[in-house]
Amino acid sequence: MDIICLPTEMTSWSNRMIAKGKSIALAPTMGYFHKGHLSLMKMAAEKADAVVVSLFVNPIQFGPNEDFERYPRDLERDAELARQEHVDVLFAPEQEAMYPQRPKTKVVVEELTAGLCGAARPGHFAGVTTVVAKLFNIVKPGMAVFGQKDFQQLSVIRQMVRDLNWDIEIIGHPIVREEDGLAMSSRNIYLSPDERQKALCLHKAIQLAQKKVRQQGVNEVSALLQEVRTFLGSFVGVDIEYVSIVDSDGLAEQNTVDQHSVLAMAVRVGKTRLIDNAFLFEN
Amino acid sequence: MDIICLPTEMTSWSNRMIAKGKSIALAPTMGYFHKGHLSLMKMAAEKADAVVVSLFVNPIQFGPNEDFERYPRDLERDAELARQEHVDVLFAPEQEAMYPQRPKTKVVVEELTAGLCGAARPGHFAGVTTVVAKLFNIVKPGMAVFGQKDFQQLSVIRQMVRDLNWDIEIIGHPIVREEDGLAMSSRNIYLSPDERQKALCLHKAIQLAQKKVRQQGVNEVSALLQEVRTFLGSFVGVDIEYVSIVDSDGLAEQNTVDQHSVLAMAVRVGKTRLIDNAFLFEN
Repeated sequence: MDIICLPTEMTSWSNRMIAKGKSIALAPTMGYFHKGHLSLMKMAAEKADAVVVSLFVNPIQFGPNEDFERYPRDLERDAELARQEHVDVLFAPEQEAMYPQRPKTKVVVEELTAGLCGAARPGHFAGVTTVVAKLFNIVKPGMAVFGQKDFQQLSVIRQMVRDLNWDIEIIGHPIVREEDGLAMSSRNIYLSPDERQKALCLHKAIQLAQKKVRQQGVNEVSALLQEVRTFLGSFVGVDIEYVSIVDSDGLAEQNTVDQHSVLAMAVRVGKTRLIDNAFLFEN
Repeated sequence: MDIICLPTEMTSWSNRMIAKGKSIALAPTMGYFHKGHLSLMKMAAEKADAVVVSLFVNPIQFGPNEDFERYPRDLERDAELARQEHVDVLFAPEQEAMYPQRPKTKVVVEELTAGLCGAARPGHFAGVTTVVAKLFNIVKPGMAVFGQKDFQQLSVIRQMVRDLNWDIEIIGHPIVREEDGLAMSSRNIYLSPDERQKALCLHKAIQLAQKKVRQQGVNEVSALLQEVRTFLGSFVGVDIEYVSIVDSDGLAEQNTVDQHSVLAMAVRVGKTRLIDNAFLFEN
């Protein structure tokens, strides 16, 4: 596995691959790999000749009071894990290599970024789409794999690729969960043992809502949201940021549950912000 | 020469070229070709194995009261002219092919777009950068040629490419002028014979300013601007939109002329908006 730190070197590597007719799959990450990341890498390896994993904690997608500084980082451990997954290149640029000057250019997706995480994190998605645009241009992949835990992000990136005509297939990878149901996240490391237990509220809320829909035939969104909010509200030390049921395509809020309905939630467990989501019907 | 109308077909064509190791140069245009466009095509042909000329009157870069509807169009004539320049592909998509849905994604360059044409045409440059981003992703060129008449546009696109890491060399082509000095523009067709004569004011203003700088050693920007404004103001039926002297790199207004100083102007001659620019020193 090569570790490449300079964008220009990364592009040269990709150009050589493309000249040989090899397909490249990119898995963009912020590192501190967990099993979710490793599954992205496995999926990428199944689908393309060469796998590039980018590892970059992107400052411009963090708000001023967010956890950019303390976001967990461990390049050595990450490199070893990526190596075990037969990744071809770990692209791990320094901040100065990605933003040598203060950037003047932004890629902005409107509408889809207004609600859910976008409402609580102004500028977050512009930071995401801008860095992903950069990564797409640097790595020139034929496909890119993103986790479905960042459900809104996946929709936003699909929209960006469609609107701006990147010749890149976007692949969503199902959420990978701990045995007890907690969605894997690099931020889970912030949780104290007590908070770790309470963090299960998200997965339990999904199960509750799915049961209401699938077994009890509830299809009224307002009733479901009420149930979920009451349930989450019963956990001391858990603060709801949002609970929504939206259409998986356009992310519009729905009144009635259908096959496209996704329950999406963000909560704070102590100081740690966690998100989770799931289709309400089987999907 | 192929005429391709669908973005996906254009990308397939480019992918085949790239697989053969051929370099592609793109000249993005809005059509109604004049000698300026033809020089872009010649330059592109000198520098790359294959030349793609895009022809698309991009609605999202026109303001609501601008000339999108009446912008001159003549695909047949343009195709014949491009053929004579040994263009490989004329990429001429319909509006519906470029914007099948109302786009939600914008590429925005800040700061550089605030002044000059950007001040008078809000949203114009976002329309330009967004469509150029699309063209870059559809055509996948290794280089792209733009005319220096759209001086601010060229700076903005260079900035966008640098900030978002497109692996594309941006080449500026010097302004091509009519024998009497009028910068070639598809919009010159709007001019009545009387206006056509008055439109020379722009080139004459450039000559005036260059003479002041080069022969008389004037280097105070305010004095030069005063001279140019007075000169342009002496033409009845010519309205000044802006006259500025800016640094060619960052487009910042200057106080003192130096080797990077560009005189940039926009005027209305009757209802027709014309722009022109030049370095004040030899360049």
